[in-house]
Amino acid sequence: MNHDNSFSDVGVLPRAEEGGDMQLACIGSIFAPASVAIIGASDDIRRIGGRPLRYLRESGFAGCIYPVNPNRDVVQGLKTYPTVDCIPGLVDLAIVALPADLVVAALEACAAKGVKAAIVFSAGFAEADNEGERRQHAMLKIARNSGMRILGPNCLGAFNMHTGFVGTFTQALDQGFVDAGPIAIASQSGACGGHLAYLCRQRGIGIGYWITTGNEADIGLSESMLWLARSPKVRVIVAYAEAIRDGAMFIEALRVARASGKAIVMLKVGRSAAGARAAASHTGALAGEDAVYDAAMRQYGVHRAGSIEELLDIAYACAQGVFPGNRRLGILTVSGGLGVQMADAADQYGLEVAPLPESAQLGIKAVVPFAGTINPIDVTAQATNDKTVIGRCLEIVLSEGNYGSIVFFLTSAPAMPDFADMIFDALEGVRQRYPACLIVLSFVAPPDVVRRFEAAGFLVFEDANRAVRAIAATANFSSSFGLNPGPTYRSLDASRLPSIPSALTKSELQGLDEHGAKTLLAAAGIPMLAEVVAADASEVQSAAAGMAMPVALKIVSPDIQHKTEVDGVVLGLRTPEAAADAAARMLAHVRQLRPDARLRGVLVSPMCQGGVETICGVFRDPVFGPVVMFGLGGIHVEVMRDVTFRLAPFDVFEAAAMVKEIRGFGILQGVRGAPAADIECLADILSRLSVFAYANRELIKEIDINPLMVMPRGNGAFALDALVVPVSE
Amino acid sequence: MNHDNSFSDVGVLPRAEEGGDMQLACIGSIFAPASVAIIGASDDIRRIGGRPLRYLRESGFAGCIYPVNPNRDVVQGLKTYPTVDCIPGLVDLAIVALPADLVVAALEACAAKGVKAAIVFSAGFAEADNEGERRQHAMLKIARNSGMRILGPNCLGAFNMHTGFVGTFTQALDQGFVDAGPIAIASQSGACGGHLAYLCRQRGIGIGYWITTGNEADIGLSESMLWLARSPKVRVIVAYAEAIRDGAMFIEALRVARASGKAIVMLKVGRSAAGARAAASHTGALAGEDAVYDAAMRQYGVHRAGSIEELLDIAYACAQGVFPGNRRLGILTVSGGLGVQMADAADQYGLEVAPLPESAQLGIKAVVPFAGTINPIDVTAQATNDKTVIGRCLEIVLSEGNYGSIVFFLTSAPAMPDFADMIFDALEGVRQRYPACLIVLSFVAPPDVVRRFEAAGFLVFEDANRAVRAIAATANFSSSFGLNPGPTYRSLDASRLPSIPSALTKSELQGLDEHGAKTLLAAAGIPMLAEVVAADASEVQSAAAGMAMPVALKIVSPDIQHKTEVDGVVLGLRTPEAAADAAARMLAHVRQLRPDARLRGVLVSPMCQGGVETICGVFRDPVFGPVVMFGLGGIHVEVMRDVTFRLAPFDVFEAAAMVKEIRGFGILQGVRGAPAADIECLADILSRLSVFAYANRELIKEIDINPLMVMPRGNGAFALDALVVPVSE
Repeated sequence: MNHDNSFSDVGVLPRAEEGGDMQLACIGSIFAPASVAIIGASDDIRRIGGRPLRYLRESGFAGCIYPVNPNRDVVQGLKTYPTVDCIPGLVDLAIVALPADLVVAALEACAAKGVKAAIVFSAGFAEADNEGERRQHAMLKIARNSGMRILGPNCLGAFNMHTGFVGTFTQALDQGFVDAGPIAIASQSGACGGHLAYLCRQRGIGIGYWITTGNEADIGLSESMLWLARSPKVRVIVAYAEAIRDGAMFIEALRVARASGKAIVMLKVGRSAAGARAAASHTGALAGEDAVYDAAMRQYGVHRAGSIEELLDIAYACAQGVFPGNRRLGILTVSGGLGVQMADAADQYGLEVAPLPESAQLGIKAVVPFAGTINPIDVTAQATNDKTVIGRCLEIVLSEGNYGSIVFFLTSAPAMPDFADMIFDALEGVRQRYPACLIVLSFVAPPDVVRRFEAAGFLVFEDANRAVRAIAATANFSSSFGLNPGPTYRSLDASRLPSIPSALTKSELQGLDEHGAKTLLAAAGIPMLAEVVAADASEVQSAAAGMAMPVALKIVSPDIQHKTEVDGVVLGLRTPEAAADAAARMLAHVRQLRPDARLRGVLVSPMCQGGVETICGVFRDPVFGPVVMFGLGGIHVEVMRDVTFRLAPFDVFEAAAMVKEIRGFGILQGVRGAPAADIECLADILSRLSVFAYANRELIKEIDINPLMVMPRGNGAFALDALVVPVSE
Repeated sequence: MNHDNSFSDVGVLPRAEEGGDMQLACIGSIFAPASVAIIGASDDIRRIGGRPLRYLRESGFAGCIYPVNPNRDVVQGLKTYPTVDCIPGLVDLAIVALPADLVVAALEACAAKGVKAAIVFSAGFAEADNEGERRQHAMLKIARNSGMRILGPNCLGAFNMHTGFVGTFTQALDQGFVDAGPIAIASQSGACGGHLAYLCRQRGIGIGYWITTGNEADIGLSESMLWLARSPKVRVIVAYAEAIRDGAMFIEALRVARASGKAIVMLKVGRSAAGARAAASHTGALAGEDAVYDAAMRQYGVHRAGSIEELLDIAYACAQGVFPGNRRLGILTVSGGLGVQMADAADQYGLEVAPLPESAQLGIKAVVPFAGTINPIDVTAQATNDKTVIGRCLEIVLSEGNYGSIVFFLTSAPAMPDFADMIFDALEGVRQRYPACLIVLSFVAPPDVVRRFEAAGFLVFEDANRAVRAIAATANFSSSFGLNPGPTYRSLDASRLPSIPSALTKSELQGLDEHGAKTLLAAAGIPMLAEVVAADASEVQSAAAGMAMPVALKIVSPDIQHKTEVDGVVLGLRTPEAAADAAARMLAHVRQLRPDARLRGVLVSPMCQGGVETICGVFRDPVFGPVVMFGLGGIHVEVMRDVTFRLAPFDVFEAAAMVKEIRGFGILQGVRGAPAADIECLADILSRLSVFAYANRELIKEIDINPLMVMPRGNGAFALDALVVPVSE
């Protein structure tokens, strides 16, 4: 449970725990040690104690390297020490490559030596058996007592290509290191992290930092991501996760990354039932609801990828750091058919295939008489014959189209060196003259041709559809970073959160009936009808006399949750007298059926008609704490599962975005001549509910408002029924 | 308009037009000519008259080659003829590579010579201007008069790797031919067809036949696909389309392919508004509604791909010819994380991640103590150390898991030759012992390693997600081909179509009011309430007296379509007298408002309550003819667009599948304690409606049944309102 942070100074924003900054600084020792001890160093470069030593020797690492092995004086040509404490100088980082049963003692020696951080490769801990779990716990205790941070156990380590520190035994670097670059990779799975590194090397994608967290005895994925989000050398964070353990830290990492314009691309697996089952057995961690992860990522502008391939495609596209200023995509093509396909893809991924202005279209026609000119701009095969065609068309599209991004499909023509040269000439200077436009080429050609265009500042994708998908992702990041004139995510700013009364006490939440729940929520600003609790029939009659007819009656008891089951609800009473009669019958009937229940009387309410029935509520996610749900009522929730989620707290802008996400949003906009619903009021209610739930997150287990009736615009919305369930003792 | 076929002998099934078989045979001359004339032959192998000659000389083509060029005696070393008629022998096929203005005369000479088929590369026809359109028309006239078939103009030709006939000038083969294989490619776009050929060559995918249809003056994509569907050497048809011109022929191709177990994988572009606009300007053809294409492809088991990459992935997976016998997928992995990702993907694409039986799980544990054993089966990195682990685990999974398909993720480990050998040994004999199981490997390694495993009968995908997507596609084809025990598409069999009265005459459709429309539909077996048309108030009273109360009244007039606008509908009348009063008022009111309208009286109906409100209807698609639509009523149609389509006619099995496709299907299954609706009756109605619409497709423009009230199971369904709109004169 990691959502137990106190309110920050701005009111209700979560922040990382006290002392987090100092602890985070120690993670730096994982990535940038000045001296490294390798405990269990081996001469065999294929062994886990041998490979990292080889890597460190070959990677240009400038720090001190101290092999530790009691049986040898020299390992891989380096002077070797029998134990850590025999090492003469300071040791920033220890890499532990020992059998599981020797690890705890080695870490104790490291802590005694004053080592700042340790990477434990060894398996045989919590993932294996009870004995392993005990060892892992001992390991954590050493970390907590000494302040030494620990990565692993059961991990593949970390590397930092900026300094040449390569503290991993992944085979992915066997055939060569990757280049340093603005992409960082953080993975809970070692194999997956290694696979990503291999693919990056193959595609010529540079990686700065790379970290795998394994069993996460101490350092977890969230903290690693937060460190990376704060690192000035990181532009893109690629994350692979099976189960987030520290929800608050994770959200803080997302918040920091967004605030500093860093793109996070994430593959969170365990989406399906079979996947979740496998993830649970693989990690042993409680993953929480996938829909909540999904909401968290959407809320904080993370691109959630569905595959390894997508993960790298998007990271590659973002690494250049050009985020388009609008969603308009200009499509150039030498194949009309592929142009159509890219237009379809743009629509699918939410880009706008805006037409080229008329004058620009005439300009294109002047260059290529039979060209398609609207958008896609089909320069036809003529482009392959005339050197100047592509350059001239491109210039027209860039200078007159006002496109935030451009994609140009060129088949496999650049595989022919002459053609590649021609294109390269045509693109001369374009990157410099239009620095704000994201320019993406799609063609199939040998790697050296691709690298040549990449080095000149162009992105290259073999598949046109994947090119468009990646462009759309960069445009989404633009929105998230506030670089777009269009609808933009706004970072959570406490000054925009509605203010609510201070947090409740435990006793205020005991024995709540419907009226009590409504009173608490009303105090938080959630509008209720003018209802009255009446003790008996005569009080009902006078209460009803003061209301517009018809009225509704509901039994009030903290012991009766399903009021209809005891005939505790009567609707549509047309006179105060009828209301009094019905109340008398209801009270008698309920007393008979439920003699045990505390009856507090009858709630008299005016009937609320002509609105759209919605529901909202709050539940506690084991990872992320209070989560707000919203949907249309009735079958929309039950059959269509047309609901959406947000982590609490959030402001009205986020709430409005949330409301727009449901498939049935059109119903709120008004159908069949019905007026539009009061969406502004609805958004305000959801935001208030989120703040209320967050402020009382330790005490409230669940809130249900069903129905929340949203009236026509200007007429508000009303919680017709409400339930607040406190955390049980 | 291509849906004007007469009824076939089985009743109402569409079939290709008369003489189609003979014409189709002539398409064979495009693919398998014994002799080829190249008109406009050139010595320059980069020109469109030079490249095909070079290809034919280098490809092992065994037929006669006759260059035609009035200015030379020898071209590329071959004896050259001034005109076609100077060629001494028979000419099966002429390739025309001339400027547009010389093409018609050349084709006339070909026809006179008795040439069976011609390929016209030249551009400058209907795609260019009016003059070009005139030329194209003249070309078609020659084809029709002589029987000579023509491919093109403005196309990239065709090739047949089985015989080495390469009649194309695509640059895609410049660096080498593709191998012959069971995949055929048919593309309306030349550039796209060429790009596909290039990618196949690069991925080592064999192509047998390849055809690009360009402007489709004579031979279109549909006819090409039909020929390929009938060819014994074809196992997979890859099709790229912008606009189908011959809907009936297209459907016949799909039908024949499915009946003979051939997979069709299709990229139909123009899905989005921008895409459709671009496609229309590119092809000049009216494309029809994309949703109808989508329905047609789903109805006939075509895999609709969303990208070039997906197109080839699925074709590659199907080319092996192993279609899994069930949807159960066994997942093996050396990375737990990727295992989870594949499980997610399997769920997403509709495969079943079924657990391994307990005994088999124990077997796996005996081999790898820390393995994940349920499914995914995570053999962990231990598999990379012990030679026998993979073989033993694979054997257990294959022999005990009852999986229709297996995917095995191996990271980039096979890039290391030792490991590749080890895997290869482990897989020894597996392909032979389990021939029915589709076995797919996912790893990243150099092409020679990939080819080695492919040659041994395994599919290899770099990306695990794409591997799973391709497996799901093969399982869908299994269902389509009837190879699955599960829910299976059934080919349309006229004996299973409901029988309806013979087709209507034009006069029967004139002046139809609601009652008239209902009478026609009722005769086709669509159930109606027991309604009565009453001429006046007194007839209304007696009619109502014979019905259960309450009743509804509706004005009956062929001139009034929107009855509520003239107050022509009254519901819930509780006595015969009240009905008579209401009828008198209604008739007087309508007479006053619409003195011009023919009033036939008042329709008296019992009220139908307690059912699920649905709608269905028929409209005419310009490509595919009558299309049946189904959806839930009200906001489900208006806001959610929760509707589905099928080409008419179809049987009840197809109708049942159609009903299940809507998102709100759960409502028909019963929610909130409501009983399940009469889905059997609903399916019968949809099937009958489709047969009725098909039988009268020349006369009926539109049918609307709204609402179609579906009662609880066993109680049928009733068309409460109906409209039949005839084709206007």
